[in-house]
Amino acid sequence: MLPWLEGPQGSPVGAGPPAERAAEATARAREEVAALLGVEGRDVLFTASGSEANNLAVKGIAWSAPRERRRIVVSAVEHPSVLHSARFLEKQGFALTVVPVDGTGRIDPEVFREALGEGTALAAVTAASNEIGTVQPIAALAEACAATETPLVVDGVAAAGRLPLRSRAAGASALSVAAHAFGGPSGVGALWVREGVRLTPLLHGGVQEEGRRAGTPSVAALVAMGLAARRTAETLETRRRRLDTLTAMLRERLAALAPPPILRLTGHPEERLPGHLSYLAEGIEGESVVTALALEGILASTGYACSRADLASPVLTALGFSAREARGSLTFTLETTTTGAAIDALVGTLGPILTRLRRLSPLVE
Amino acid sequence: MLPWLEGPQGSPVGAGPPAERAAEATARAREEVAALLGVEGRDVLFTASGSEANNLAVKGIAWSAPRERRRIVVSAVEHPSVLHSARFLEKQGFALTVVPVDGTGRIDPEVFREALGEGTALAAVTAASNEIGTVQPIAALAEACAATETPLVVDGVAAAGRLPLRSRAAGASALSVAAHAFGGPSGVGALWVREGVRLTPLLHGGVQEEGRRAGTPSVAALVAMGLAARRTAETLETRRRRLDTLTAMLRERLAALAPPPILRLTGHPEERLPGHLSYLAEGIEGESVVTALALEGILASTGYACSRADLASPVLTALGFSAREARGSLTFTLETTTTGAAIDALVGTLGPILTRLRRLSPLVE
Repeated sequence: MLPWLEGPQGSPVGAGPPAERAAEATARAREEVAALLGVEGRDVLFTASGSEANNLAVKGIAWSAPRERRRIVVSAVEHPSVLHSARFLEKQGFALTVVPVDGTGRIDPEVFREALGEGTALAAVTAASNEIGTVQPIAALAEACAATETPLVVDGVAAAGRLPLRSRAAGASALSVAAHAFGGPSGVGALWVREGVRLTPLLHGGVQEEGRRAGTPSVAALVAMGLAARRTAETLETRRRRLDTLTAMLRERLAALAPPPILRLTGHPEERLPGHLSYLAEGIEGESVVTALALEGILASTGYACSRADLASPVLTALGFSAREARGSLTFTLETTTTGAAIDALVGTLGPILTRLRRLSPLVE
Repeated sequence: MLPWLEGPQGSPVGAGPPAERAAEATARAREEVAALLGVEGRDVLFTASGSEANNLAVKGIAWSAPRERRRIVVSAVEHPSVLHSARFLEKQGFALTVVPVDGTGRIDPEVFREALGEGTALAAVTAASNEIGTVQPIAALAEACAATETPLVVDGVAAAGRLPLRSRAAGASALSVAAHAFGGPSGVGALWVREGVRLTPLLHGGVQEEGRRAGTPSVAALVAMGLAARRTAETLETRRRRLDTLTAMLRERLAALAPPPILRLTGHPEERLPGHLSYLAEGIEGESVVTALALEGILASTGYACSRADLASPVLTALGFSAREARGSLTFTLETTTTGAAIDALVGTLGPILTRLRRLSPLVE
């Protein structure tokens, strides 16, 4: 990023050599992101976050939909940027259908198909949940959408860098990603929109991004996202294998914690994001675990950055857990840089903490 | 920015020491931006651009307006991010009034007052135009808004770093700025919204910015914006004096170009942005001037980054110039780092170019 933060900052849509260099670098970054998604560069828009990409996809397609299509369909395990965009559209006069999931967090394609009517403006589904790790059957859901010519928005933010995206884009009309989820910086994302899909801008004004997204961008951030996308695309299979090994190791160690068995896996047992494990610790508050781990020098957090710590997770609620059960949520996200020793240290510390907290808990009978 | 780009990137709304450091730095940057605007830090939202800040202000306040307030009022010299946001709201069922300006680009407060009815959701006016330099009588316009309790959105993007903003915020409901306009990086802006003014988010989702703007931000960009705001606030008066001196010098040199007098000042003769001069070169295409200057090693551009080079400027058209006249637009933006020698070199090169181009022009009788 450094060359783009030092010296004159050209705008990719300006004139003169600095602007031309910025435009060239932006075009290259766009191709690199497109390659990670398995799509055409000309159909990729840069945004300032995955949340902006999701907002733009859901609102932008809904606002461009034919008048007779006034329904939005989303699943019950969507990221707030998708769910709350849909709820906003509901206030603007659209109808909203929230498709339920099974106990593993999966959307049943048949249930999904029934929710789609002729009058659906768009459906939005996450490729994989960052909260419970469950991977959705996007191909089957896309097929259901194709039958009614319903545009499908796929939230790829959690999947990017962990799962191939080309197959997720294949039947979709739009796909969102965020750079920081695959090794890039915070504050930059992208949205692919299939050629021919009409999209009303969310940010009106300038000629940037072919008039579909106004605002002078950070060229440094776009370049960094491109580089991260290229590296991710080149190493995806190696990364996946490494993450699968680490995940199996952590899962085994946690399963061996005894007595008693106090961790219950949430989400799908097999169809999961590589490097992602999520549990409910029965009768234990996640906050207490975080505090106890911090005292031992291990950093953790409850929920994730986009959620409110004081509210029960709507995703866990959708899986059938009570608000009380949901308070015991523990999520582990492994990176390729995670070591076996770190996993041993984590489980060695976590085990006794869970046992002690459980003994103290008034929630356990 | 560097410490925030290296090492672990904490989210300001996450948990753990990196997140806490990010939250502290973000809070400090927010106070620094607030100090430049002369407002309270708690009422300042970070965005990814000045255009996003303008979009959020105009749409966010309109969407939150009482049902009986369904009119948007803007001036004829607004930035595309304000004008096109208003036009989008028009498609969503709002009425739009575009208030004309006089030949200097100024809004007459009486004309403005008449355009404001009881049913106005908001009015949006730029503090100063980046195209013609004209400074608007914001205090008088704010007074007109107060009489009908109409929220006034002030676009402060071009004014920030060149004019004091406190007096512009005084009677306003919202004020937008972009960091790159006052020495900060591209890709970050801010919107101040007066306490009590209702604002529907443009980016729904996470808990960032108190739920008013979703998306994980670039902490590096926020920190840099804060620093630029602090430096700007500390040096504003010195900067203004230096810019006024440089501007007077350039203006004098250009006025002395002879024969014949071929440059006509656009915008207001006195009420102008410090460091800003804009002209129409009679019978000459701006593009030809840019090319000729480039051959002499001087970089210039026609229009500005957010406009389309192939369309006549709506701002110049609003001042009463024809599309043909508007093609001869030349804008000079001086910085405190501009030297007298650079001004001499520019005018020494530009003068003969204008004379030669004018002789060649089929547009001149």
